[in-house]
Amino acid sequence: MSIIKEKVKQAKQILKEFDVDCWITFVRESQLNGDPILPFLAPADVTWHSAFIVTKDGQTKAIVGLYDQKTIEETGAYDEVIGFVEGFREPLKNYLQQLNPQKIALNYSVDSEICDGITHGMFLTLFHLLKELGMEQRIISAEQIVSALRQRKTKTEINHIKKAIEITETIFERVTHFIKPGKTEKLVAQFMKDQAKTFGVELAWEPLVCPAVFTGPETAGAHYAPIDRKIEPGHVLNMDFGVRYEGYCSDMQRTFYILEPGQQEAPAEVKKGFATIVQAIEESARAMRPGVLGKEIDAIARSIVVEAGYDEFPHGLGHQVGRFSHDGTALLGPPWEKYAKKPFYPLEEGMVFTIEPRLTVEGRGVVTIEEMVIVTKNGAQFLSHPQKELILISANER
Amino acid sequence: MSIIKEKVKQAKQILKEFDVDCWITFVRESQLNGDPILPFLAPADVTWHSAFIVTKDGQTKAIVGLYDQKTIEETGAYDEVIGFVEGFREPLKNYLQQLNPQKIALNYSVDSEICDGITHGMFLTLFHLLKELGMEQRIISAEQIVSALRQRKTKTEINHIKKAIEITETIFERVTHFIKPGKTEKLVAQFMKDQAKTFGVELAWEPLVCPAVFTGPETAGAHYAPIDRKIEPGHVLNMDFGVRYEGYCSDMQRTFYILEPGQQEAPAEVKKGFATIVQAIEESARAMRPGVLGKEIDAIARSIVVEAGYDEFPHGLGHQVGRFSHDGTALLGPPWEKYAKKPFYPLEEGMVFTIEPRLTVEGRGVVTIEEMVIVTKNGAQFLSHPQKELILISANER
Repeated sequence: MSIIKEKVKQAKQILKEFDVDCWITFVRESQLNGDPILPFLAPADVTWHSAFIVTKDGQTKAIVGLYDQKTIEETGAYDEVIGFVEGFREPLKNYLQQLNPQKIALNYSVDSEICDGITHGMFLTLFHLLKELGMEQRIISAEQIVSALRQRKTKTEINHIKKAIEITETIFERVTHFIKPGKTEKLVAQFMKDQAKTFGVELAWEPLVCPAVFTGPETAGAHYAPIDRKIEPGHVLNMDFGVRYEGYCSDMQRTFYILEPGQQEAPAEVKKGFATIVQAIEESARAMRPGVLGKEIDAIARSIVVEAGYDEFPHGLGHQVGRFSHDGTALLGPPWEKYAKKPFYPLEEGMVFTIEPRLTVEGRGVVTIEEMVIVTKNGAQFLSHPQKELILISANER
Repeated sequence: MSIIKEKVKQAKQILKEFDVDCWITFVRESQLNGDPILPFLAPADVTWHSAFIVTKDGQTKAIVGLYDQKTIEETGAYDEVIGFVEGFREPLKNYLQQLNPQKIALNYSVDSEICDGITHGMFLTLFHLLKELGMEQRIISAEQIVSALRQRKTKTEINHIKKAIEITETIFERVTHFIKPGKTEKLVAQFMKDQAKTFGVELAWEPLVCPAVFTGPETAGAHYAPIDRKIEPGHVLNMDFGVRYEGYCSDMQRTFYILEPGQQEAPAEVKKGFATIVQAIEESARAMRPGVLGKEIDAIARSIVVEAGYDEFPHGLGHQVGRFSHDGTALLGPPWEKYAKKPFYPLEEGMVFTIEPRLTVEGRGVVTIEEMVIVTKNGAQFLSHPQKELILISANER
């Protein structure tokens, strides 16, 4: 089954579960200003005012411009696709009048950007149309519907994510033979990008910082691009990288140590930092199961890092992954203002999360691992093969 | 001067002209759900709630997440860039309180998708913040500001568009030697795409239909992708193609005729169709000047086509071009419902338009030319080199 068919089918069940009569995704010129949920409902951008409607009793209908009709029909996900020439107003009004829904969910949200797809102008357009029908008071936010739909991954979605992870792990394996003292962050980043090209996959986020590569003690914040800084013996090097396979992302970090001449292993302080991160990941993953709140998981890893004597990491422990490397609403994060309600949601079966604690080893660099897990009814299952050992790079320049 | 500096400077003048105290572009996670105006204000996507503010008295301020601060500062376009850690609310409230604007323009529009950048969730966020300040009644649509800013092209923007056109014309020149009877639409399309790659430019729109290639009498509607249909002698072939250079687009169409064995020129009915299109373009371009309404220009070309005995084209005569191949609000279009108010705007100096009438020659194919012009105070100036002759392709298979 295509992803669109899978997701539209899932949407019907979600509407039933939340007892919402009708969910409308309403977009126009989606190339300019799309809705992040649109790829689950349509295989390509749409031009004219377009409404994708799912109802609690299982009806699915799309009202789109004539030129887009065929493309939407071919998904097989809709009972009916109306292709209009004159305008969307009459077919949409007729359908809603006949349906007479008591709750009409639209894609807006103050707290969750991923659920905030409708523009204000499009909201006004729909609001006035519903007012003509006396239904404008029935509008509610579709936040919980969109969140559930994005985060409950279907089989096809999980398979795509697994494939993205497999490619990422292979590229991390290959770069291990490329990293050498004297090479720059930029060179290492270029190697990763070139590898992605040979696999025919896109990068999972903004190419400027995909991968992010940080070597040595003077590494900048997490959002900066690789620079001409050279790799040196004694450095901890870490990398954040992901690819997009068939629309689905991986997002992983690995930590390397560059041996000094004569060294056989990393110094004690680096090993301690690394072991702390491994333990934080293991213990937080062990606690993950449906019903537990994201902030509870974050707190486990955070306290392991702090109790080991490090500063707490200045970000959440993990985020969901899907069509974007940062996807979904629920977050493994601390209850900080900027995360709004995201850390307060319970985990659900089918959510895919990163786990990515971080700490700084003074004089060496940043130790950070990012694994990917899926929440099952029995707990978290690793989708990535967890890094359990520092990757040691020999000191030889060649 | 960088485009961002040019455009922010231009925005100050536009606010003065329209007597609007303050214009706020308000976005978050712009990779997911950006505002089409953002590339004029910031060089890269932003992560946290970010406000870009221009005032009538010439102040420019950005309030962004800490990690984005440096990138925005480096544009040199803002008097001050505040990088917040905790949240945007306090710095934004403080600044607005001090400014006390009477009119606050936000990027929403029922009629113009290109001016409809703020999501409904972000609108609510700002609405509630302004309510706390007693200013929520001062919100107005920024449609006229955003329209003016997009459509009044600066020198740098015009140069980028000219370069995109130059590359497009070179590729059209080259494909003339590639088109041959027996080749398919798909093959011709691939040649165009490969050429764009050799120039290191992106395609101006959705690759599936860039270029659009139509050969012969049974050509489908304008939005369909090239197929395996073979070019045959006696066919009229047309192509719609554009590239994006430094963020700015071209959008052009050219018409070819495939000679039959022994033919030295196109048959009379094809020549007549072509001459009609050329005349429609010349006469509508001649009438373009600041102050004339878009629908008046559309009517000129439309009546030339109809009076020559052809069906009227089922679309507007021309649209603006900029960062998107379809850009801007004002349109050279007929007063049809689906175009809303767009055909009713007066032309302004600095607008870049396509002119693209179309007609069908029965049994031969579709004749269509798309030129690009800029509106100057003295009238329209062609940016492209207008096609004045059918491009004749020899009948030899090789």
